[in-house]
Amino acid sequence: MNDTDLTFFLRPRSVMVVGASTRPETLGGKIFSNLLQSGFTGGIYPVNPKAPEVQGIQAYPSVSEVPGPVDLAVLVVPRDAVLSATAACGELGVRAVVVISAGFSETGEEGAELERLLVETADRYGIRLLGPNCMGVFNTDPGISVDTTFNPVPVIPGGVGLVSQSGALGCAILGLAAGIDLGFSSFISIGNAADVGVADALRFWETDPCTRVVTCYIESITDVAAFADTASRLAREKPVIAVKSARSDDGIRAASSHTGALATDERAIDALFRQSSVLRAASIQEMCGWAAAFQSCPLPEGNGVAIITNAGGPAILAVDACSDRGLTLPVLSHEVQEELRSYLPPEAAVANPVDMIASATADDYRRTMEIVARDPGVHMVLILNVTPPIGSGSLDVLAAISRSTVADEMPLVSSFLAVDSFYPQVTTVEGAPPVYRFPEPAVSALAALARYSRNRSFRDEPFDGLDTRRDDAATELARIVESDTVGADGLLPHGTASEIVSAYGIPLPVQEIVTDPDSAAAAAGRIGGMVALKALLPDLMHKADVGGVVTRLHEREVREAAIAIEGSVTAAGHSPDGFLVQEMVEGGVELIVSVRRDRVFGTMLMVGLGGYFTEALQDVQFSRLPVGPAGVERMLRSLRGWPILEGSARGEGVDIPALVDLLGRVMVLAEDHPLLEEVELNPVICLPEPKGCRVVDIVMRTSSPIEGDIDA
Amino acid sequence: MNDTDLTFFLRPRSVMVVGASTRPETLGGKIFSNLLQSGFTGGIYPVNPKAPEVQGIQAYPSVSEVPGPVDLAVLVVPRDAVLSATAACGELGVRAVVVISAGFSETGEEGAELERLLVETADRYGIRLLGPNCMGVFNTDPGISVDTTFNPVPVIPGGVGLVSQSGALGCAILGLAAGIDLGFSSFISIGNAADVGVADALRFWETDPCTRVVTCYIESITDVAAFADTASRLAREKPVIAVKSARSDDGIRAASSHTGALATDERAIDALFRQSSVLRAASIQEMCGWAAAFQSCPLPEGNGVAIITNAGGPAILAVDACSDRGLTLPVLSHEVQEELRSYLPPEAAVANPVDMIASATADDYRRTMEIVARDPGVHMVLILNVTPPIGSGSLDVLAAISRSTVADEMPLVSSFLAVDSFYPQVTTVEGAPPVYRFPEPAVSALAALARYSRNRSFRDEPFDGLDTRRDDAATELARIVESDTVGADGLLPHGTASEIVSAYGIPLPVQEIVTDPDSAAAAAGRIGGMVALKALLPDLMHKADVGGVVTRLHEREVREAAIAIEGSVTAAGHSPDGFLVQEMVEGGVELIVSVRRDRVFGTMLMVGLGGYFTEALQDVQFSRLPVGPAGVERMLRSLRGWPILEGSARGEGVDIPALVDLLGRVMVLAEDHPLLEEVELNPVICLPEPKGCRVVDIVMRTSSPIEGDIDA
Repeated sequence: MNDTDLTFFLRPRSVMVVGASTRPETLGGKIFSNLLQSGFTGGIYPVNPKAPEVQGIQAYPSVSEVPGPVDLAVLVVPRDAVLSATAACGELGVRAVVVISAGFSETGEEGAELERLLVETADRYGIRLLGPNCMGVFNTDPGISVDTTFNPVPVIPGGVGLVSQSGALGCAILGLAAGIDLGFSSFISIGNAADVGVADALRFWETDPCTRVVTCYIESITDVAAFADTASRLAREKPVIAVKSARSDDGIRAASSHTGALATDERAIDALFRQSSVLRAASIQEMCGWAAAFQSCPLPEGNGVAIITNAGGPAILAVDACSDRGLTLPVLSHEVQEELRSYLPPEAAVANPVDMIASATADDYRRTMEIVARDPGVHMVLILNVTPPIGSGSLDVLAAISRSTVADEMPLVSSFLAVDSFYPQVTTVEGAPPVYRFPEPAVSALAALARYSRNRSFRDEPFDGLDTRRDDAATELARIVESDTVGADGLLPHGTASEIVSAYGIPLPVQEIVTDPDSAAAAAGRIGGMVALKALLPDLMHKADVGGVVTRLHEREVREAAIAIEGSVTAAGHSPDGFLVQEMVEGGVELIVSVRRDRVFGTMLMVGLGGYFTEALQDVQFSRLPVGPAGVERMLRSLRGWPILEGSARGEGVDIPALVDLLGRVMVLAEDHPLLEEVELNPVICLPEPKGCRVVDIVMRTSSPIEGDIDA
Repeated sequence: MNDTDLTFFLRPRSVMVVGASTRPETLGGKIFSNLLQSGFTGGIYPVNPKAPEVQGIQAYPSVSEVPGPVDLAVLVVPRDAVLSATAACGELGVRAVVVISAGFSETGEEGAELERLLVETADRYGIRLLGPNCMGVFNTDPGISVDTTFNPVPVIPGGVGLVSQSGALGCAILGLAAGIDLGFSSFISIGNAADVGVADALRFWETDPCTRVVTCYIESITDVAAFADTASRLAREKPVIAVKSARSDDGIRAASSHTGALATDERAIDALFRQSSVLRAASIQEMCGWAAAFQSCPLPEGNGVAIITNAGGPAILAVDACSDRGLTLPVLSHEVQEELRSYLPPEAAVANPVDMIASATADDYRRTMEIVARDPGVHMVLILNVTPPIGSGSLDVLAAISRSTVADEMPLVSSFLAVDSFYPQVTTVEGAPPVYRFPEPAVSALAALARYSRNRSFRDEPFDGLDTRRDDAATELARIVESDTVGADGLLPHGTASEIVSAYGIPLPVQEIVTDPDSAAAAAGRIGGMVALKALLPDLMHKADVGGVVTRLHEREVREAAIAIEGSVTAAGHSPDGFLVQEMVEGGVELIVSVRRDRVFGTMLMVGLGGYFTEALQDVQFSRLPVGPAGVERMLRSLRGWPILEGSARGEGVDIPALVDLLGRVMVLAEDHPLLEEVELNPVICLPEPKGCRVVDIVMRTSSPIEGDIDA
């Protein structure tokens, strides 16, 4: 809607503050004083019905009386005056409106209705809207220097962009950042996000030269498609870090299959972030710690960390943290160790970590890091320093390492375990690397750099050639999906589902559908070997629960088993539509594969370990479609059960290429048939390479059950 | 050895500092000045060969010339002078020696030899030794006030005891603590722990009235039995919090079974801590945060948290953190909500979290927490405050909540998202609750309080009556274990293992051991129904890997299967000792159960989900023997797969009482036969209640393989 970017919010030529106050302790006073102090050189228009001037600037009694053209209006007026003020802005030709005022959708239905009217009003005038219930925006670009927030903390200009869905936490981030020398390019407080959302902010930063790192505090993502597109594009150029909260508030949506029960928003959010290369931080502290590293470090070319310390304990904490986060500690080369030995005391450890012991001087630190950085296995350097009771002070060490050129070549971060008074002095050291108090956050930041570096080189091309193998049956079957008799909850008959799956080249066991016990036995004879026998129960997803499945039957046992199945299924109150007689697939690993539509996330592919372990251990991964072979393989590698699939646990592993191919085909199927609400292949038996996979059971559900069936 | 407690270290009547220096920037100078400034009123004797007095106190040129009786000597001398100084201390009748000097076992073999000689020397004189390579001790008990450390940070006296295996991190903890108003009763820096270790420190705190909370930084536990005994006893009275590092340095010890491969020290450490009720913190920050809460809060009577805030964002972070840590947010009662509504603005949320919105005053905070605390579902209160741009300041809010009596009745902690300058002022507010910057550490502290509260009420009685069911066969079989022919790696023949297990009332399937295919078929006939057939391969733990197992055989298929097994096993280079024909146990859940001896941890029981998932997902729990039924059930509940066992995942669940009984019997078996190095029951098929469990395969290994077999 309206303008496609946030230029008029972040690069306005003139700003009007409606509700600018003469009293600095009010919101309207603080916002106006922040604006005045920001160094903004464009037109500034306070609107105040009572004061002829506000904080020394000529004021206007109403919006309509403001003379000049106005790009951006900031509304700090009572809630009930917001609509008329917005309309007045529209009449004046304002392009962007920030609504600071609260009392809208966050307070209930009445407020939500008012918010809808507000959006309508803005739309009518082609105005883009930030908020309501937000903190405003600032841009520290020296060519702009505009601040329309009531942020009480002085901000350090820098390369970090921040978008926050909570004003309070936005302030907290700015406050924390000031203490760790984290500088901001721009801050966009989206509040209720009635119009401008996270994706708009990301889009602005794509082309903003001042912003090199993007940070986000997000409580909910409403426009997933826009977020995914923009974040993916932006993250290829600039690191995007996000804290996503409201993790536990996500309700598990009602669904007829356990696939649905697994598909909580959090797993979908993880998938979205992984696919968009957004780095998810566990907390605001962690996000700020990462941003500090991205702000000043080049990207590493690998996972190798060298640790340089003057005490053993912190190095052990750092080694543990590296191990937790997948970073490695290469043993330093013989040459490097020899060189270190030449000047370090004999008690020093030189393999990595390099423990120079308590007597280490500032110069020892600088010299050691420069030698260590020449080792080809070292991609990052972590400096640990404990203020020793004697010898050089921590500030000397920090100054010494700040003078080195190592930080130009590879990431260099530090942890100083020092007295409280040390930390405020860090910002006085020119060129200082990021300083963390404890080793763990320093390692966490290095791991984020390494992960981003890997993400940037990750490429996922679309599946190639799969759709050409689809035959005409698929097209034919599109009609079946739309017209065939389906069960009360939209379930397709097993035969139809099997035909569709088969038409897409998804491998099934040899199988026949029969109507009675005698023909079941005959089918078993044709199939040969052992068979599985299943009751066809169109209305039931888990037929095993009612005694509808018997496996490993010999031909001669089939008739009797079919009669028994009929009995127990009927006793459970179901009437079978016949039987499925299926070649017995022995061995292999059971997986579950599904594709389902989600109102918010779109079409989601899921893969995980099958059987009852799925539910208890929930070892599943999601991806938002589309995803290519590389992305699918990344999903598989993210499963805790990957060693089982790979064969590095006991067992032979599974046919990974066949499994990846199967997942590709399922996605093509889902893309071809938008009326298919859900396809669940469970279990998929994956055999060792090159034996492929077999889909042993299928649930296929349409979004449009036949009405008659629903009434029945 | 020597004295059984640390009285002479922590309550000395007189202290001698050998190497006391006139120069305050040296270790010997700093230690002596800390001692002088500590307010210690007992005898103080500096020993310095060159100075007639040190820092104003008369000095003695050598240890032997010190006049008075000396309880505690602190050695700050060159490494090579430590032995002779210790001997001189011994001659003088010193009871306790702190060796600050480094250069011992931490530097390699030569230093380790010197350390052994040092311990010998101390032993000869009945001296207890702290260090070497340590920071000393302090005790802030006003009746003692002694400090022999070179800690550069002023310490706040309080109720927290600290033992640290790293001097540097000990200092870091004291430094961090000073900033958060955490007060210490005593600090024991154990360095290389040549004599005094963590367990000694814990034992001291058992009877020290000044210490109410115990904190530990541990890199390794050498005397597990002493630690377990003391920590369990202490933790019943006082919370014990530990950071255990060197997690990733633990090598996985070589072992012939995958049980062994799982038994890394970290899992054993977790078991040790769980069984001793030691609270394991993830980091030093977390430990200090927890200690601050234990220092000032009563224990909660449940898991219910009420959150009171003036902004939504931080409350969402807190709710997420509560959910992560098993704390609940009870919906407040109708009465409480009505009462809150009577004075809070209409936009406020009153269900829980109570969001009083930005206009909340300090008095609103106090009033709200007092009302909310009366709700019977509320066991803990979390205050969240964001410094608002207008309205009451955070310090006013802190002062208001500090005046309330709620903190006397239940835990009260807070998170203040404020400007940097706020935090140093916290200590000026009398009676202030623990203040954390972010919500997550505040919630983490509440969860630690709740966990400790639950731990204290946990009781585990020994298994009752199990051993009486043991029959004489067990005694008879003790001889078999010690004398029978065992395989090259100590494996007992399957028949022997089965008899032993059976004698302990551990349930096996109906089974027979036979020599050839024909008798296998005959045995199958006697057993009836389907059978499993297994080659007996005494030297091989995993016979399925060489095609030695076939399941679900009908009687008529057994002979042919036995011939096939013989073929494939022989092809793999093994010669079977015969066959096991076993009743087929259908359904149920596969578990793995083992008992094994560990050099460091003693006898460890393990239980986990079986099959190849064990290895990939490592869903196992350990306990150190002995453990009773309640402890065993707690192990089972800690498995990720607990929902499978309990039957809350799809499936019927398993016979938990039978499983607990089985685990008890395995432990009795292990206790009876110390020569059994390892008993692995894998798989144990656990059927739904009341069908019990069946041990389908057994590996039993003695610690004394027959020598001839090893040579073969």
